[in-house]
Amino acid sequence: MTARVELTGLPGFPLVEPGDDLVPMILDSLARAQIVPADGDLLVLAQKVVSKAENRYAYLDDIVPSAEAQALAEKADKDPRIVELMLQESVEVMRHRRGAVIVRHRRGYVHANAGIDQSNIRSDPQHQRVLLLPVDPDRSAAQLRERLREATGAELCIIINDSAGRPWRDGTAGFAIGTAGFEPVVDMIGESDLFGRALQITKVAVADELAAAASFVMGQAAEAIPVVHVRGARLRPSTGGSASLIRPRAEDLFA
Amino acid sequence: MTARVELTGLPGFPLVEPGDDLVPMILDSLARAQIVPADGDLLVLAQKVVSKAENRYAYLDDIVPSAEAQALAEKADKDPRIVELMLQESVEVMRHRRGAVIVRHRRGYVHANAGIDQSNIRSDPQHQRVLLLPVDPDRSAAQLRERLREATGAELCIIINDSAGRPWRDGTAGFAIGTAGFEPVVDMIGESDLFGRALQITKVAVADELAAAASFVMGQAAEAIPVVHVRGARLRPSTGGSASLIRPRAEDLFA
Repeated sequence: MTARVELTGLPGFPLVEPGDDLVPMILDSLARAQIVPADGDLLVLAQKVVSKAENRYAYLDDIVPSAEAQALAEKADKDPRIVELMLQESVEVMRHRRGAVIVRHRRGYVHANAGIDQSNIRSDPQHQRVLLLPVDPDRSAAQLRERLREATGAELCIIINDSAGRPWRDGTAGFAIGTAGFEPVVDMIGESDLFGRALQITKVAVADELAAAASFVMGQAAEAIPVVHVRGARLRPSTGGSASLIRPRAEDLFA
Repeated sequence: MTARVELTGLPGFPLVEPGDDLVPMILDSLARAQIVPADGDLLVLAQKVVSKAENRYAYLDDIVPSAEAQALAEKADKDPRIVELMLQESVEVMRHRRGAVIVRHRRGYVHANAGIDQSNIRSDPQHQRVLLLPVDPDRSAAQLRERLREATGAELCIIINDSAGRPWRDGTAGFAIGTAGFEPVVDMIGESDLFGRALQITKVAVADELAAAASFVMGQAAEAIPVVHVRGARLRPSTGGSASLIRPRAEDLFA
């Protein structure tokens, strides 16, 4: 059987406002793309639309920076109120320099600026706000999966992805911050079985590879494409979330 | 226009031996998949088949480890001859512990064990060998692109990918070690233009995102799938290679 994976950026997805229900928006955009969801299909959602629907906006006028946030903001040349939010969203500051603060987010991933999106700041000077990551992206993904199953009858897989810079390599790449319905890290059989000896096993971060693929599709168009449908991935079912994507700190040579 | 990207793992790719010409192998496997290459199509090749065709095997019996390699091998609990090859292939040892040596490869990427593949070691005890990365993956990619253009008339894009562990996250993910025909890092326009203000620009490592996507497809089947055809990526043409994927060391907070 030929291995074939098809990714479709769902067209015409509307702007999301706090309190919006993403499920009918997803169903409408699937219909516009003439896709009937089937068992095993994967939907990758950009973190931004999930965070907006969950009203994860923080209003800077409401934030009182701590002394720690003020000191770090000075060193990093950032707004102390945003740094306060970064500290609230994270468990550890890993690196900082002018213009950059790298933290370990409370959900485990290492992320510049705790994944806080500041693209709304200048657009609304009277009411400056930033967008935090979802409180629990695995829960968000599981809830979307469950409600999409009720609506379509299909057993779907869900990834909530974000995009971030990486050590050593330039340019951002997509990765998974929440998953539902499948194993995000799987043991793959390497090529060596072709030689008839013991199988060589590698743990592969399939959720990150697919999150990166979807991130590429999301970035292709000038319009926003926050949801990508993926067919053909043949993922392994699982009832768990994305925790296995986080390397235990004790095993990490770059902690 | 709907953004759609289709990845096909080319079936029946033969085992590659030193000196083999990959071009007819690629053309045969495209034909088996009933794919006629078209301008803008991308081919992603696993590093292993390029290295094998270029006879990048090193025979351990030929290697005399230096004192530095012996000391590091002792600390990392590795074969000193393989560590010697790692040192020859790299410009800097970044981290080590028992079982792991992370280096900066002479081509710039940070990689466990300098990307040296040891899967052939146990299979041939009389003549133990390992497989190094291609000498110059960008040159290999450019040559393949040129010869495929002569054979098919199509302006193709090429990625040579490898798969590696990453800091902070568990499981391997694919990334690009060589590219030809397209810009591997591009400036993308963010969502913020929807609000009518200054465009927000992000540098996106599209070559790595597509290398990860192809790596997922390569890992899907029990048989080896070393070449993946990608249609619909609409990449930006370029005559350069993959150097822009490497973050300058001075800008790297995790150097």
